Amino acid sequence: MRSLTAEEIAWIAEGAAALGAGGGGNPYVPALALRRLVRGGHTVRVLDPSELPARSAGVVLCGMGAPTVGLERLPTAGRYGDLVRSVATLCGVQLSFIVISEIGGGNAIVPLIAAAESGLPVVDADANGRAFPELQMNTFMIAGLRPEPLVLDDGKHVRVVLTGLPDATTAERYARALTWAMGGSAGTVHSIRTAEDVRAHAIPGMLGVAESIGRAMQRARSLKMPVAAGLRTAVPGATPLFEGKIVDIERRTAAGFARGTLQLEGLGEHQDADMTIDFQNEFLVAWIQRGSERTVALAVPDLLVLFEAESGIALSSESVRYGLRVCVIGIPAPAALKTARALQVTGPRAFGYDLVFVPLPGAMTGDVPA
Amino acid sequence: MRSLTAEEIAWIAEGAAALGAGGGGNPYVPALALRRLVRGGHTVRVLDPSELPARSAGVVLCGMGAPTVGLERLPTAGRYGDLVRSVATLCGVQLSFIVISEIGGGNAIVPLIAAAESGLPVVDADANGRAFPELQMNTFMIAGLRPEPLVLDDGKHVRVVLTGLPDATTAERYARALTWAMGGSAGTVHSIRTAEDVRAHAIPGMLGVAESIGRAMQRARSLKMPVAAGLRTAVPGATPLFEGKIVDIERRTAAGFARGTLQLEGLGEHQDADMTIDFQNEFLVAWIQRGSERTVALAVPDLLVLFEAESGIALSSESVRYGLRVCVIGIPAPAALKTARALQVTGPRAFGYDLVFVPLPGAMTGDVPA
Repeated sequence: MRSLTAEEIAWIAEGAAALGAGGGGNPYVPALALRRLVRGGHTVRVLDPSELPARSAGVVLCGMGAPTVGLERLPTAGRYGDLVRSVATLCGVQLSFIVISEIGGGNAIVPLIAAAESGLPVVDADANGRAFPELQMNTFMIAGLRPEPLVLDDGKHVRVVLTGLPDATTAERYARALTWAMGGSAGTVHSIRTAEDVRAHAIPGMLGVAESIGRAMQRARSLKMPVAAGLRTAVPGATPLFEGKIVDIERRTAAGFARGTLQLEGLGEHQDADMTIDFQNEFLVAWIQRGSERTVALAVPDLLVLFEAESGIALSSESVRYGLRVCVIGIPAPAALKTARALQVTGPRAFGYDLVFVPLPGAMTGDVPA
Repeated sequence: MRSLTAEEIAWIAEGAAALGAGGGGNPYVPALALRRLVRGGHTVRVLDPSELPARSAGVVLCGMGAPTVGLERLPTAGRYGDLVRSVATLCGVQLSFIVISEIGGGNAIVPLIAAAESGLPVVDADANGRAFPELQMNTFMIAGLRPEPLVLDDGKHVRVVLTGLPDATTAERYARALTWAMGGSAGTVHSIRTAEDVRAHAIPGMLGVAESIGRAMQRARSLKMPVAAGLRTAVPGATPLFEGKIVDIERRTAAGFARGTLQLEGLGEHQDADMTIDFQNEFLVAWIQRGSERTVALAVPDLLVLFEAESGIALSSESVRYGLRVCVIGIPAPAALKTARALQVTGPRAFGYDLVFVPLPGAMTGDVPA
């Protein structure tokens, strides 16, 4: 058990931006809110999965919606603490901890806010090992656990409890429609999990991974190290894929997602090449075009991370814009996302791409064997 | 207290088709299902509002969605009984009765099925006095009662409970999005109401009105009486508006509704005129064009009912088709829908028409002063 300091929260937010692979919502504003809570005397206690009491129960929590909307709807004080308390009441269960649903983007911070507001500890583990756009892309659901009860809040007064959900895809469809009706962003608790579920299926250590990435990036910045070299001190498997300038963005906020395509023109050693990147909240697939040859540089579930070249700040799909110079770096996904079973929901085919997933070599720090 | 016979159910279904004013879902299939239940020994007990025990609670129940979809998704045996039972469990309340949400179309029959399946009695009253497309167009909500808890089922396993709804419009928006995600039709219990709520705000006697309309129409058919004359024996205020042939239909199933416009070419005494009718599940507004003069023949909340001229059968907005000869008859809405407050949600402006509501003269049998 440890308690997070304001400085550690800043590192986690920076690392989470990278692990968001473009999605998960911008961590900047939630991290400000969380640091204010901590400075005001609230505590974010962090437990290792091994420290959870046997048969205790916790909630898997995140925000849901298009990050484009999340950016403009600021979090209400007390919202996530209220959500956790109302889940306990509505579902008649005693809650002992909070589980991070996805360690990428703002969704890494939201459970920490819930922990600070509710007084419950958060577990150092997550169910995505990155950010992913849909509910079924989650290690609990990949393991076949049912995604219920599912509870949504609209950030105002409404609580919605869904029970009897037969599978994660149905949960995703209903929750997405509601989120959209709620104005494009919702708070969600998708399922109550026991300590045993967390130990068996969540990816351990991911809060630590986010923190070490953030710390490495801040250190690299102070030492004026190149982005890729800095990142590699925290994530040995990080692979530089491309450097270039964003020359076109096609973007649409549709069916509850921020979708689109980026075009990059190569710079430096990539100046004879172009890169195309598709996103659905998260960056999904990158192709390099060199002359008439077009190859896949990276595909989900491996992480495609765009850093602003100058500042070394990880960019989200809603903050990329024309003219930015970026370093595109691939990070190997945690092993749990790369099993044959996991790839059915995390691989390129699950997103409609007729591609075979070829994993990046190497591993993410904190990675666990599947 | 009385129990409905199979013959009375057939009359109610025929009358409900007229009171649907084009919407509420086709009553034919639900009525077949209900008659099978009654023949199989189930009972539909009907109570007058005055017979409800003090402070007892009941559920306001209906199907929700585009009737076009409802037509193709047949009711599952036991569905509505299950829904009522799960509301009692999920909301921790003892239920003593079922309230008809809208007496129009299949939604008049659904609560009777729930009564047969659950063993609870149904109250002879409804909260719409017709069919209406949206949740807020409801006498409980017009009176300012909150529309919660709202429970939806997807006809399979899922139950969704919404609480904390601040107003009926929010309830409508969230429930509509979910209904659409559920494939376009859902079962809904929107709110639990006490005996006192029902006596104060529901429109009494509407099940009897449906039955007397159905009985009158069947009698008219056997006596080869004209449709309007037959209807007037049950509803003194019924007003013939137009006779014609459907010559064009523009139709779209959008945002959870069956929407569109009908064009009619006049016949008989109307042969120098045309009629245009807009619908959103229900027929909303009819205009008569005679030469260069265009006048409103009828607007919501008064009921616009289209009868197939030959058979005298009331047509729903999803069953109108090119070439049908129809009698268009107006029925004055119950008084509760015509107060200044009610017209804010039931009147033409609530549907986006820049029209002043001019009520049809006369009254519907069973009508009550506001």
